Amino acid sequence: MTKKSLLLVAHGSRRAESNDEVRRVTEAMKKKVGDRFIAVECAFLELAEPSIPKGIEHCIRQGGEIVEVIPYFLSAGRHVAEDIPEQVDIKRREYPDIDIRVTPYLGAAEAIPEVLLSLLDNKS
Amino acid sequence: MTKKSLLLVAHGSRRAESNDEVRRVTEAMKKKVGDRFIAVECAFLELAEPSIPKGIEHCIRQGGEIVEVIPYFLSAGRHVAEDIPEQVDIKRREYPDIDIRVTPYLGAAEAIPEVLLSLLDNKS
Repeated sequence: MTKKSLLLVAHGSRRAESNDEVRRVTEAMKKKVGDRFIAVECAFLELAEPSIPKGIEHCIRQGGEIVEVIPYFLSAGRHVAEDIPEQVDIKRREYPDIDIRVTPYLGAAEAIPEVLLSLLDNKS
Repeated sequence: MTKKSLLLVAHGSRRAESNDEVRRVTEAMKKKVGDRFIAVECAFLELAEPSIPKGIEHCIRQGGEIVEVIPYFLSAGRHVAEDIPEQVDIKRREYPDIDIRVTPYLGAAEAIPEVLLSLLDNKS
């Protein structure tokens, strides 16, 4: 079976707590996917470590033949349209045999309006 | 029955397309809630119109006795912790009889890891 890994890519923040939130989401995804992915990691576009190329490298070193990059972004701005693909391409050139894919960004998920409405019930 | 309205609050962007994405999410929420809310609007912290106080004002003018403010943000940074509450408080002082509530921010929603994983299936 093809070995797949998953890399959640966030913007990165000077606030350590914001980066830790991304790590917590990554852990939650890891629990959900079970053994369907050999690695579930996160990486940051800027201001935090690891960088996107380092994150991809880490996924590949764990044996990932397919790396799925998920952009943790709400809008299709320059970061999603240009910066992430640019960073991903660095590794595509370095590893032409590895299939490095980029999924749609979070804000494009159909479930977002429903998830926003679910926040109404979470309050006291 | 108490008249409720809903205000989705995003950061705002210089890119018109990003602000339009927020408006589209707002429209999708509006369709989902049906007549449970008398108004479903959006507002922006900066760089786009309407501002948060103007958005709240609009909700109140349509007859909202409860205004639910939903922060369209992924992390609990300064914007969520300080800036949005500050803007909301301006209107709370102006309208002490209106119940203006702020829900948890989007990134805090339990469904986020699952929604991120759903992006894997959306690709060709």
